[in-house]
Amino acid sequence: MALNPRVKTHAQIMSTANKKKEKTHWKRNHEKSCDSCVDLENNFDDIKHTTLSERGALREALRCLKCVDAPCQKSCPTNLDIKSFITSISNKNYYGSARAILSDNPLGLTCGMVCPTSELCVGAATCLLLRRDPLISEGCSSLLPSKMGIPQIRNPELPPANEMPEIYHAPIALIGCGPASISCGSFLARLGYDNITIFEKQKWIGGLSTAEIPQFRLPYEVVQFEIDLMKDLGVKVICEKGLGVDGMTLTSLKEEGFKAVFIGIGLPQANKAKIFQDLTMDQGFFTSKDFLPMVATASKKGMCQCRSSLPELRGVVIVLGAGDTAFDCATSALRCGARRVFVIMKNGRVAGLQLCRTEQTEEGDWLEDEEQIVRLKADYIISAFGSMLNEPQVKEAMAPVKMTRWGTPEVNTDTMQTSEPWVFAGGDIAGLANTTSQHGHSVDPVPKLPLFYSAIDQVDISVEVCGIHFPNPFGLASAPPTTSTAMIRRAFQQGWGFALTKTFGLNKDLVTNVSPRIVRGTTSGHMFGPGQGSFLNIELISEKTAAYWCQSVAELKKDFPNNVVISSIMCSYNKEDWTEIAIMAEASGADALELNLSCPHGMGERGMGLACGQDPVMVRNICHWVRGADGVTATNTVSGMMGLKADASPWPAVGKGKRTTPIALRAVSAIARALPGFPILATGGIDSAESGLQFLHAGASVLQVCSAVQNQDFTVIEDYCVGLKALLYLKSLELRDWDGQSPPTERHQKGNQFPDWKNWWDSLPSFGPYLQQRTDVIADYKKKIRNTGPEVIETDIRQVNSSKKPVPAVKDVIARALRHIGTYQDLSNMEQVQAVIDEEMCINCGNCTGCTLCLSVCPIIDCIKMVTMAKPYKPKRGVPVSPVC
Amino acid sequence: MALNPRVKTHAQIMSTANKKKEKTHWKRNHEKSCDSCVDLENNFDDIKHTTLSERGALREALRCLKCVDAPCQKSCPTNLDIKSFITSISNKNYYGSARAILSDNPLGLTCGMVCPTSELCVGAATCLLLRRDPLISEGCSSLLPSKMGIPQIRNPELPPANEMPEIYHAPIALIGCGPASISCGSFLARLGYDNITIFEKQKWIGGLSTAEIPQFRLPYEVVQFEIDLMKDLGVKVICEKGLGVDGMTLTSLKEEGFKAVFIGIGLPQANKAKIFQDLTMDQGFFTSKDFLPMVATASKKGMCQCRSSLPELRGVVIVLGAGDTAFDCATSALRCGARRVFVIMKNGRVAGLQLCRTEQTEEGDWLEDEEQIVRLKADYIISAFGSMLNEPQVKEAMAPVKMTRWGTPEVNTDTMQTSEPWVFAGGDIAGLANTTSQHGHSVDPVPKLPLFYSAIDQVDISVEVCGIHFPNPFGLASAPPTTSTAMIRRAFQQGWGFALTKTFGLNKDLVTNVSPRIVRGTTSGHMFGPGQGSFLNIELISEKTAAYWCQSVAELKKDFPNNVVISSIMCSYNKEDWTEIAIMAEASGADALELNLSCPHGMGERGMGLACGQDPVMVRNICHWVRGADGVTATNTVSGMMGLKADASPWPAVGKGKRTTPIALRAVSAIARALPGFPILATGGIDSAESGLQFLHAGASVLQVCSAVQNQDFTVIEDYCVGLKALLYLKSLELRDWDGQSPPTERHQKGNQFPDWKNWWDSLPSFGPYLQQRTDVIADYKKKIRNTGPEVIETDIRQVNSSKKPVPAVKDVIARALRHIGTYQDLSNMEQVQAVIDEEMCINCGNCTGCTLCLSVCPIIDCIKMVTMAKPYKPKRGVPVSPVC
Repeated sequence: MALNPRVKTHAQIMSTANKKKEKTHWKRNHEKSCDSCVDLENNFDDIKHTTLSERGALREALRCLKCVDAPCQKSCPTNLDIKSFITSISNKNYYGSARAILSDNPLGLTCGMVCPTSELCVGAATCLLLRRDPLISEGCSSLLPSKMGIPQIRNPELPPANEMPEIYHAPIALIGCGPASISCGSFLARLGYDNITIFEKQKWIGGLSTAEIPQFRLPYEVVQFEIDLMKDLGVKVICEKGLGVDGMTLTSLKEEGFKAVFIGIGLPQANKAKIFQDLTMDQGFFTSKDFLPMVATASKKGMCQCRSSLPELRGVVIVLGAGDTAFDCATSALRCGARRVFVIMKNGRVAGLQLCRTEQTEEGDWLEDEEQIVRLKADYIISAFGSMLNEPQVKEAMAPVKMTRWGTPEVNTDTMQTSEPWVFAGGDIAGLANTTSQHGHSVDPVPKLPLFYSAIDQVDISVEVCGIHFPNPFGLASAPPTTSTAMIRRAFQQGWGFALTKTFGLNKDLVTNVSPRIVRGTTSGHMFGPGQGSFLNIELISEKTAAYWCQSVAELKKDFPNNVVISSIMCSYNKEDWTEIAIMAEASGADALELNLSCPHGMGERGMGLACGQDPVMVRNICHWVRGADGVTATNTVSGMMGLKADASPWPAVGKGKRTTPIALRAVSAIARALPGFPILATGGIDSAESGLQFLHAGASVLQVCSAVQNQDFTVIEDYCVGLKALLYLKSLELRDWDGQSPPTERHQKGNQFPDWKNWWDSLPSFGPYLQQRTDVIADYKKKIRNTGPEVIETDIRQVNSSKKPVPAVKDVIARALRHIGTYQDLSNMEQVQAVIDEEMCINCGNCTGCTLCLSVCPIIDCIKMVTMAKPYKPKRGVPVSPVC
Repeated sequence: MALNPRVKTHAQIMSTANKKKEKTHWKRNHEKSCDSCVDLENNFDDIKHTTLSERGALREALRCLKCVDAPCQKSCPTNLDIKSFITSISNKNYYGSARAILSDNPLGLTCGMVCPTSELCVGAATCLLLRRDPLISEGCSSLLPSKMGIPQIRNPELPPANEMPEIYHAPIALIGCGPASISCGSFLARLGYDNITIFEKQKWIGGLSTAEIPQFRLPYEVVQFEIDLMKDLGVKVICEKGLGVDGMTLTSLKEEGFKAVFIGIGLPQANKAKIFQDLTMDQGFFTSKDFLPMVATASKKGMCQCRSSLPELRGVVIVLGAGDTAFDCATSALRCGARRVFVIMKNGRVAGLQLCRTEQTEEGDWLEDEEQIVRLKADYIISAFGSMLNEPQVKEAMAPVKMTRWGTPEVNTDTMQTSEPWVFAGGDIAGLANTTSQHGHSVDPVPKLPLFYSAIDQVDISVEVCGIHFPNPFGLASAPPTTSTAMIRRAFQQGWGFALTKTFGLNKDLVTNVSPRIVRGTTSGHMFGPGQGSFLNIELISEKTAAYWCQSVAELKKDFPNNVVISSIMCSYNKEDWTEIAIMAEASGADALELNLSCPHGMGERGMGLACGQDPVMVRNICHWVRGADGVTATNTVSGMMGLKADASPWPAVGKGKRTTPIALRAVSAIARALPGFPILATGGIDSAESGLQFLHAGASVLQVCSAVQNQDFTVIEDYCVGLKALLYLKSLELRDWDGQSPPTERHQKGNQFPDWKNWWDSLPSFGPYLQQRTDVIADYKKKIRNTGPEVIETDIRQVNSSKKPVPAVKDVIARALRHIGTYQDLSNMEQVQAVIDEEMCINCGNCTGCTLCLSVCPIIDCIKMVTMAKPYKPKRGVPVSPVC
């Protein structure tokens, strides 16, 4: 590895022949030639790329443009609120992100893992403009919720169970414990139904998700997690019972007292071409419905109390079909030892091993042409031509439901109701699904389906400041988002706790703004679009009159009595003016007054704003004229300067001003240290629950927001409130090594967890010939353990985290950080740290040179840790010196 | 389009059936079914995705990790300095980026367009870790150089032509004007050879790049641009002359006086299987060498003075082969009207239209199996099985060069020399190329090949401040990059103009730092790794003694007499101390002294640093004790506070401080306005030539850098110097609407320029059914003009931009922006602007609500423009008010 890079003084020269040799030492991907195929026998470790590491997810989330009409969302078959869940990821509010997904789709994790995003959200996304597939697929939501270990609870807005109408206690049967019934059961339980039973024919639960989608594409833990969340709401699951088994029929269920039945059994039989009818597995013929469950039971831990071996395939395998299932068969066959696998489009007529080409004519008809053929040899054939329902006893058990000509129940595609009003059907058997997706939720006639709830959503985040009750600590700063009453009104409707009016003054001081006056912050670098850190602005106070604002405040307080309205006012240094406007503002019913003594723009030049605020005597006098100071807002815009274009003209063509977090955070903590307990309304950098909590910790009581609303819209309040609730709730769990909603980092390589091979090699890097060695070691080991099958583990073990101590209220966390904040002299230069690099995680980028700086520039989270130095630190003084310091 | 988004209170519900319908309205990509294939007949407009818009390129450049060992670079067949050219893109130094690429590879643009990056740089890149193909492919360099219109010049370090040794005037012949000869000719000319002639057999130049790679993958303008750059150096090109034509042979060339010959004729004949020998084009059989040139001459403007039509293909086409050329044939065939095209792997033995399967055995041997076959019908067959040389007269003309058994010249793969020492060969004919790549540059025995140069590289960027001559205005601030002499020494070697020592004091004031002390700036958001805006730091002054520094400065001045060394010193408020250290520092030979009166960390608490600097009287006295103030450094670290973790502990566990551009820029301009002409050494945000020029414009004389070096390494100086030269040079060209090195934005959709269809529709959006309509309109139009062929245009027209006025010196641009900077009252609130949205460029993200803010949050460059309001602005006062202001 080279250090000390140098400026090039000459063009580089190397012969093509030598270059080809050198290159192989540095490759990190595999050569495409057949010789270098990775041996995957019995190896199910690789997980689809939709599961991102935390840092990867944060980085990807940056790409979202926050489109108002979010076309990605419009293309999602499960209607996910994609923009909201990406916003929450950006804000490190992982609970909020999971909640948004699970609200719309109780199978959000499963869908995320198997979703063909390029045809759905990604296919529609605006940000394709950025030339890459732009969305974090839904899968990144799998980052966290299961790690938090927090159960789902019943919709808290419902009356208690014993006060619910009788119908909610009626027994409901759901048949088949696959995706359709899990979704149906979850939504019914959220609506308040409390007597739901799922009957599953197999020994295992999860249906197709468990038995047919391989472990490396959909790990069993994901299915288990979603079923556990459903069970949290009281849904019962009974295995080894199904339609046609032991005499169970729709009629028998009705006789047992079930008032409604949902058929969610999928299509359990393979669609097998006639020509294969007599072929058996011994002869080398499988259907996907034969083959995939054999692979699943032999490779998925926890799926059932059985231990079986992988089917053994040697030689050439032909998979018929070209859908997801066909590719699951193909990739699984490789893991069963096949040497080569062909996937063959199904538009051929099989005759022995010969396929005829089918072609579409100009008129759109399909013709089979026996003169155009493909003839191949194979040791095994796996047919993956789709599914069907053809068990006679199951069909009989569905009587008297009317069937379609394909032998499945006829359903209304809007209500999912069959010909029998008390029988519903959903999922594959209802004939609409292309891939795992959410069905059955239309069972209830009421169109409003409850969201996902947990104990986190019940955390109280109200706070009292100066005797005023704030429903939550987030409000709008006196800034562009409060330009008019209509905007404040919309904000309150979305859940904001309080708002300051845009600062107003007396009519004689009325202003007219210049334009342009708001531009992106220079710290945004090349980032354009939503999600920037801050804005530069030269906006003055409100262009509207005091009369307008006083009338507006009265109306707002009347319509939103539980929200707090603070009037922001400004005059020049003049007792009469301040008295006049303060009396007006108080009379209008404002909960408090903010005296604007800090505007750094044109107001200062008029002898107002910071012209008063920078003189302690003037500040004291103005406060006394009005009533005294009960609290303080910190900080206003900081003076700075915008960028200059290459021709020396500034952009905007006028102006100064920007807002930046660390200065505001420092100001808040400085005031809190100087005046313990003094109410501080913080502003300047609050753009998430996470940054909000930082300001609370630094001593703020409530939090004012502007830029973040300008970056997106008023709905971000939902993310802030849910996020703060989660942060407070997590404090009660005392989870080890978590930082807020960020769990401890798992050691990883390329975003995936390590398989635990550490004993098998001596730190092999992940590129060039080392990568090959590493791969070979794993392949050998995997083959060796091939026939031991997965560990048999209990299926019912689930980690639920419960509170170890009370959930803190907002007031409990205010100023909690102050004990850590002091002067430089408080710091010990005897307690030094040094960098330790985790070689396994290190990607050999070479950026780390060993000083503390490395942690800032190392792109791999937790690859470098700062640890206490074992020996005392001895500075290098350069030349000898007698001991000082 | 929806505005006013709302927080969700219920889960979303929509039946799958309805969803499928709704979704189609929002899709922006095409459905994958065959029915919806885009009709591309005669449409060559789409350009490969490697050409990015400026904003796209900036965004992508952010991803580079600046690996020290840059494995991407190690895998580039043309040895491109990928890290440097990406750094330059990040810094908006597009000339520097192009210069880095063209230095290593005169065919940088061509290669960028056709490079199989996934197998080369991207395949090796460390940043794959980020889960996406991470590199801007070389193609993004095509962004600018051709637009600047600046010719290549001879290596300025060479003696004048008439002083060069005789051998440099010897005639050299290069045969074939394709990639190999263009590369060879460029490097020979850079080395100083001035009598080079390229002979091209065809009427057109560019070889395979022109005749065989289709316009949509490699536009003809790109080839023309690279040939023009070569011609700038005096290389002559003669068409319609080649080996075996009109008696030209190696021997005849030798007799004509050519002292060296380079054979770069490629492999001009198609490798045609025996079985096709008798088939003709009339019968529907083409080789790629027949077919592609027919497509090129009919679709590439400017290629030759001819006008021809596209070959007409109807029905089914089979392309034999699976390489790049095969796919070029396939995509071209669609544009010639083919209804369906199959590309067929060449590992089959063709018999009529029947192919046999070839399989590799466990032992690696290839077997043909006549029992495994594919039989297909087709209307046309295009054979793309590679190339060869089989023209007898060409082979004869190469005598007496020794040939290989494949009929091509035998070459030494390191020197590219044939059996005749005066004859060299390169490119495809030398048997090594997989795709267009650089060859022939090994002709010269000297291994150091000159870089690319233009008039920009000759701009003088030195500047005189306080009578001291600075070779360039970029230096190292007194900060971690000047921790030791060794670091300053390395910086000077790389080209830095000056350096300040880390601040030192008397032995009694020696310090020991705490650790950790440098962390990433909070404005970096979720961005980790190199390229961050700023760092937070609590580093004190140097741990080294004054004696060390004085000795070091003396040594540095001795070894680097042309570089400027400034000693930064600090004491407490004490005349004796300041006098003592100033005398020591002056005696060591420092060019100037910096009195550190601004350190905001622990030094203040000791009565040093900002404890002195915040009191004007103390500042004046200290300056007088030393000698007075000849200039000022602005600004030091700004006080701020780092982040807090969720448990209220800060990170780092101690500290404050951060640096941010706009505040420093404002400080510089404020000083420059107050003290016109007073030397200012600016620091705090300079991380590129572009930001450096902003500081110069704001009034700085020279520029100090710290964070940017911490983010990468000392080699960034090359980018800064070249970038500043380019910015100054461009001022002399007076190009219209350029902002520095950023050209005016072309109207674009998805990063591509619009075809000029505006008259054909009424503003159709780019999604859903509108997208289909838009596509249909284009397809119809293209078919209609199918047989008109391309415009015949002059091939020799080239836009060269020359200086309209003298290139300004650094001193000429200092403080140029001050006339724009004033107080708020200087701004006119009568000259308002309003937003105009370009509907064609708009992606309908809906983020723009019409206020000035939209420009900041709109992700599409120049989609919104602020224009002067036609009517006077009337503020909405809310309630009526008598006219004020």
